[in-house]
Amino acid sequence: MNGFVESLKCIKCGKEYPAENKFTCDYCGDEGILDVQYDYERIKLVINSDLQKRKYNIWRYRELLPISYSAELPHLEIGWTPVYDVERLAKFIGIRKLYIKDDGRNPTNSFKDRASAIGVLKAIEFGFDKIACASTGNAASSLAGLSAAVGLQSYIFVPEHAPEPKITQLLIFGANVFRVKGSYEQAFELSKKSCERFNWYNRNSGTNPYLVEGKKTAGLEIAEYFGNDIPDWVVVSVGDGCTIGGIGKGLQEMKRLGFINRVPKLLGVQAYGAKPVYDAFFSNTDLIPTDVNTLADSIAVGTPRNWRRAVKQIRESNGTMITVTDEEILEAMRVTARLTGVFGEPAGVAGVAGLKKAINNEIIKYNESALIIITGNGLKDIRSAKEAAGKEYFIEPNLEEIIEKIKLIIKRNKI
Amino acid sequence: MNGFVESLKCIKCGKEYPAENKFTCDYCGDEGILDVQYDYERIKLVINSDLQKRKYNIWRYRELLPISYSAELPHLEIGWTPVYDVERLAKFIGIRKLYIKDDGRNPTNSFKDRASAIGVLKAIEFGFDKIACASTGNAASSLAGLSAAVGLQSYIFVPEHAPEPKITQLLIFGANVFRVKGSYEQAFELSKKSCERFNWYNRNSGTNPYLVEGKKTAGLEIAEYFGNDIPDWVVVSVGDGCTIGGIGKGLQEMKRLGFINRVPKLLGVQAYGAKPVYDAFFSNTDLIPTDVNTLADSIAVGTPRNWRRAVKQIRESNGTMITVTDEEILEAMRVTARLTGVFGEPAGVAGVAGLKKAINNEIIKYNESALIIITGNGLKDIRSAKEAAGKEYFIEPNLEEIIEKIKLIIKRNKI
Repeated sequence: MNGFVESLKCIKCGKEYPAENKFTCDYCGDEGILDVQYDYERIKLVINSDLQKRKYNIWRYRELLPISYSAELPHLEIGWTPVYDVERLAKFIGIRKLYIKDDGRNPTNSFKDRASAIGVLKAIEFGFDKIACASTGNAASSLAGLSAAVGLQSYIFVPEHAPEPKITQLLIFGANVFRVKGSYEQAFELSKKSCERFNWYNRNSGTNPYLVEGKKTAGLEIAEYFGNDIPDWVVVSVGDGCTIGGIGKGLQEMKRLGFINRVPKLLGVQAYGAKPVYDAFFSNTDLIPTDVNTLADSIAVGTPRNWRRAVKQIRESNGTMITVTDEEILEAMRVTARLTGVFGEPAGVAGVAGLKKAINNEIIKYNESALIIITGNGLKDIRSAKEAAGKEYFIEPNLEEIIEKIKLIIKRNKI
Repeated sequence: MNGFVESLKCIKCGKEYPAENKFTCDYCGDEGILDVQYDYERIKLVINSDLQKRKYNIWRYRELLPISYSAELPHLEIGWTPVYDVERLAKFIGIRKLYIKDDGRNPTNSFKDRASAIGVLKAIEFGFDKIACASTGNAASSLAGLSAAVGLQSYIFVPEHAPEPKITQLLIFGANVFRVKGSYEQAFELSKKSCERFNWYNRNSGTNPYLVEGKKTAGLEIAEYFGNDIPDWVVVSVGDGCTIGGIGKGLQEMKRLGFINRVPKLLGVQAYGAKPVYDAFFSNTDLIPTDVNTLADSIAVGTPRNWRRAVKQIRESNGTMITVTDEEILEAMRVTARLTGVFGEPAGVAGVAGLKKAINNEIIKYNESALIIITGNGLKDIRSAKEAAGKEYFIEPNLEEIIEKIKLIIKRNKI
C-alpha cells in the first residue's frame, strides 16, 4: 500500500478502518461506503515539486492513489484525455465558454478505465488471480481489457439489455461473461454472491472503496490542466454516483494541495427515466430505488450504491442536479458530434443535454464557464447513435443519382 | 503553404510541379502519384532544436507537413498514439521483442485521422467549403469527424459492404453519405467525378498528394520515440498502399534528419483475399487489379492507387510482404485483445497475423525486434469481433447456474 494512505473511513458514520481488503462499514452495512483517507500534508511536500517531470497519465498522481509503490503498472495508457475548447458547441448551448474532456479516448473507450486500473492492481496486491464485476457495460469492458493487459482472469455479470458492442468487447478480451436475465441490480447481487463463493476480487465500484480513487483522477487532471482558471462548472452524468463522487473528491484534493483556489460547482445529470439520485438530492431523504427506462444504458441504475457520496460532493461544491429526456440525449449526441467532432455514447453526452437545459432554466448563466466530461465513445452503442443520426443515401454508381440527391440536400439545408 | 515545401514530384517519371492544388502527373495520368518534396537541410536547422518544447501530437512536425503556418489547426488531438512493450504477445508470436502502437486511440478511432487532418486543412487553404472522399470506412469516418471539428461539409462515398458502425459514425458527424451499390472502386470513381462536377475538395488519399504526408507522421513518431533503438521491423497492413508508403517516407525523413541511424525493414501485410500489391511486389510487374474477398474491410482494395509507392518504400527498406487468411486475422484479433488489452479491427490486427507467419516461415528471426501498428479500433467492426470472440453465458439470476457454468469453464481451460 501507498505510504500516504491513512485509513478507510465510513462516509455514513465516520468510523475508520485500516486500509486493507475491506468493503463496507461493519456498522452501516452496504450503506457504509468506505472512503480512502490520505496524509495530504505529506503528499503536498512531494507532489508539487515532482509533478512536472512525470508522464501524462493517471499514475502521475501516484501519492493520491491507493496502490503500492512496488506495483507493476498496466502498460495501457490511461487518463490525461484531451480537453477541447469548443466554441461552436458553446454558442449552440448558449454559454460564454465551454470545454469538453473526451474520456472516450481511454484504452477501452470509456471513463471506467480509470477505475479498473486500480481494481486490477488491488486484486494482484491482495493475492487474487480472478476478478469480477457487475456492470451496465463500460466498467465491464474496461475490467476485461485491463485484466487482459495484466493477465488476470475476469468474470463479468451484465444485465440482459447491455448493448452488443460492449458485450463483444468483453468476449474479445477473454472475459467469462454471464448475461443475467434480469436487471442491473440482479446482476450486481449475483456478482457479489459469486465473489464470496469463488474467492474472486470484487471490482464493483459501488462498494469497493478503492475504485472511486481511480475515478477521481479525472478531477485531478482537470484541476492541474486549468489551475486557477478552472471553469465555474464541471458537468457529469450520474448513474451509480461513483463517477461524480470521485471527480468531486479529486477536485477537493487539488484545492487542498493548492493547485486550484476554488472547487468548481458540480452539475449532476441523470436520465429522466432513471433519476433516483436526483430525487434523493432534492427531497433531502434517503434514496428510494426505482425502475429504470432510458436508452442511456451506462447510467440506467435504479439502485445506485454510491448515491450518498454523489449527493455529498454535489452539495459541498454548491452544485445541483438536473434530468434530461432520451430525446434530449439523442439531440446531444448529434449536436456534439457535428459541432465538435467528438462522438459520445448516450450517457457520455448526457452532460451536454443537461448543461443546455440548465442554461435554458437559468440555473447556469450565460457568462459562466463549464467543462463537460464525455464519459464514453459512441461506437459503444451504435443502436442509439443510429436513432440520433439520420440516414444515408443508397445509390447506383452513376453521377445522375448524385445530382438528384444533391438537389435534395440543398433543399433540406435551405429549410 | 509551409515555406519548407519545394515541389510535387511524380513518383513514376520524376517530373516536378509547384506545390498547388494538383493531383496527378500531366504525363503519367492516374499512375503518376505526386510526392511532396521538402528542403530537409533547412528543416534540420529548425526542428532538432525546437522539437523538445512542442506538444505531443502530429503538429509537432509542422515543418515536415504541407500546411500553412497560419492554418488554424483542428482542436482534436491526433497522433502520438501509445506504444506498448507487449511481452506476452511477443512470446505467443515467438519474437524476442515486440511493440504495438495503438492507432485506434486517435479521435475517430483509426490511423486515418492523421491524413484527414491534412485533408481538411488543404481544403480550407484552397478555398473549398465542401470536401469528399471514397473509403472502405475509416478514411470516411475520419474525414467526417475532422470536417465536423473544423466546420466543413463532407460528402462520403462508401461501398455497399461497409460495416454499420463506420456508417453510423459518418452520419452522426453530419456527413452526407452515399452508399454506392457496388465495389470500392466504383465508389472511388464516382467520388472523383462528383468532386469535378460540384467543386468539392477531393480527399482520396490514393491520388491526393498531401494526404500521405499526414500518414507519414506515424513513421516520424516511431523514429522520435525509439531513436537509434528503433525496432528491426515495422509491420503494417496494406490496402491502398498509402499507409505503408507514408510510414516508410516518414522513417526515411527521420534518418535524413538524424533522429535514427537506420530505417527499419517494412513488413507489408495483405489479406489473402485482396493481395494485388503483394502480387505486384513479388512478380516485379505493374499492378493487376483483382476481385476482393476478405473480412478485413479496411484493406479490401482490388485496385490500390498507391501500390507503386508501397512497393518502392518496402523495397528501399529491405523489407518484404506477406499474406494472411481471414482465419489468421480472427485469431490475431482474439490473441491481441487477450494478451495486450488492445482491441483492434481486422485490418488493424492483420499485422499481428502477418508477423506471426513471417516468424513461422523464418522470414523474420526470433532474435529480431518488431513494432506492429494497430491501425483501427475493434469497435468499428464488431461483426468480425463476434466471429472471433466466442460466446457469453445466458443465465437466470441465481448462484446455482453460476456454479454449473464455472464447472464448464474449468473443464474448458483444462483441455
